[in-house]
Amino acid sequence: MDIPYVIGVDMGGTNTAFGVVDRRGDILFRGSIKTGEYSTGEEYVEGLGGAINDLIALNGLEGKIRGIGMGVPNGNMNDGTVEKAANIPWAKTVIVPLTALMTKKTGLPCRLTNDANAAAMGEMAYGAAKGMKDFIVITLGTGVGSGIVANGQLIVGHDGFAGELGHVTVVRHNGRSCGCGRYGCLETYTSATGVARTARELLDSKPEKDSLLRNISERPITSKDVYDAAVAGDELATEIFEFTGKALGEAFCNFIAFSSPKAIILFGGLAHAGKFLLDPIQKAMEENILNVYAGKTEVIVSNLNDAEAAILGASALAWED
Amino acid sequence: MDIPYVIGVDMGGTNTAFGVVDRRGDILFRGSIKTGEYSTGEEYVEGLGGAINDLIALNGLEGKIRGIGMGVPNGNMNDGTVEKAANIPWAKTVIVPLTALMTKKTGLPCRLTNDANAAAMGEMAYGAAKGMKDFIVITLGTGVGSGIVANGQLIVGHDGFAGELGHVTVVRHNGRSCGCGRYGCLETYTSATGVARTARELLDSKPEKDSLLRNISERPITSKDVYDAAVAGDELATEIFEFTGKALGEAFCNFIAFSSPKAIILFGGLAHAGKFLLDPIQKAMEENILNVYAGKTEVIVSNLNDAEAAILGASALAWED
Repeated sequence: MDIPYVIGVDMGGTNTAFGVVDRRGDILFRGSIKTGEYSTGEEYVEGLGGAINDLIALNGLEGKIRGIGMGVPNGNMNDGTVEKAANIPWAKTVIVPLTALMTKKTGLPCRLTNDANAAAMGEMAYGAAKGMKDFIVITLGTGVGSGIVANGQLIVGHDGFAGELGHVTVVRHNGRSCGCGRYGCLETYTSATGVARTARELLDSKPEKDSLLRNISERPITSKDVYDAAVAGDELATEIFEFTGKALGEAFCNFIAFSSPKAIILFGGLAHAGKFLLDPIQKAMEENILNVYAGKTEVIVSNLNDAEAAILGASALAWED
Repeated sequence: MDIPYVIGVDMGGTNTAFGVVDRRGDILFRGSIKTGEYSTGEEYVEGLGGAINDLIALNGLEGKIRGIGMGVPNGNMNDGTVEKAANIPWAKTVIVPLTALMTKKTGLPCRLTNDANAAAMGEMAYGAAKGMKDFIVITLGTGVGSGIVANGQLIVGHDGFAGELGHVTVVRHNGRSCGCGRYGCLETYTSATGVARTARELLDSKPEKDSLLRNISERPITSKDVYDAAVAGDELATEIFEFTGKALGEAFCNFIAFSSPKAIILFGGLAHAGKFLLDPIQKAMEENILNVYAGKTEVIVSNLNDAEAAILGASALAWED
């Protein structure tokens, strides 16, 4: 018997949003709670599980839910735990067995993983990776995350923490300092923050060069500013995306040597820069790719709705057997 | 009913060696043919399949062989083909459907993959990776190859050619030229050839430094010479291994961010350099590893017999369902 729905839970530091999702990736019913209002994992699960049970009862969905999938910061897929998550008040210093608690409260099977892995599962279930068995999702947000699928399965590693491609070292000497305490990580060059950093560096190092970005003085430059300037034909802004795309394209060539994915899917705000980012990525890939992989891996932008993708991605975990 | 044996085939450019292997990884019977004596893939399979059929008949093994696994240069695991292999006379310019032909000739299921992937399967079935689901084998020979296992499965990618970690770019600017036509590949620094190259570079750049390696003038320096000199207490030789190990350790940190393996297993001649290579690898890993992975991944040297490993690795493919 086909059970028609799953529940996706997007847990953030402030809010936890959840929804009932069908096979096509439509979110039928939604709810949310405040993540930070609880002081222990047990209390949080009382709140979240209770809200989910209510949503099920209210909409007559008893017996129609296959399971719950959760996207959780620092989520460990192997153990179903959230481990020392800096932004989650009740999980800062402890390991919370979240899936076990959720199953106890709701009676439903529950799985969790981190946000970028959930994004990859969402692409496979409902998005650009439908039907693909080998692909990589790169999330370009405040940081850079990744979800890697090979043989149709998420790569989670022996400890549940595989897929930190934002923290591969791409510059060995004089690399930019990273929030992780190291230097030269991909994230420091290609996150939204990295783009803003490149903007400031180029503005400083090319004082002779005119740019719309020089008009922004009363607040920090953002990646959105750079995009708007590029759209308006600003040369320096285009150069910033060229620098960013080159770093991504070069890194992608190394990723391809690892898992030879059919596609690399870009997700997150920066991915919407479109050709400003994609053209230099393509160029760097053509110049750097190992012959055996040449022209085989597509780089595409996710077509999932940014606002829904987190719930959808999490929900996709619950379709898996 | 448990079928007790498999056959492993190690196909090289000159010879093809094969053997009947049991569950423990003992090679019970052996044979070999000349790879280069045949002018087409069909003729080669007539020869190889015929020799295997004879070995089975001679030793009364009918019905006791589960299948055939082959380690093949440029072998495509997804398709069971050998594709444009430069060193195989009858497969230089064509794609040969090797497993299909072998099954037709012998009546046995047949799988193939490239040498480094076969090495990984061998480690999982009989060697240091027994019981592991996530590990990487790095082969340090004339070139550098890799076999990556995640979730207990080989990562072969959408095209069957994943796992070319010898060709990740580790030096972006002024990198050494590689046989692949690119620059700065890991292989150019950490293969046996790369070690010899480092030796020549250091001898040239440090003319003031005495070294046993300076006594070798009538022939090219080999990695074995460097090892012997290091054992004899030669400082420059130790420095060469430090340089090599640092390059490996730094690269391993990026590999770990990809698949978070339980172990990285070193295989091939250079792996026998022992602590001369392992100590600098460990040091570079401690200095470069992302916090979440710190101290979790072991670097170990394969304990499979070099002379048997290729047949064993290939044979391991045939135990898989």
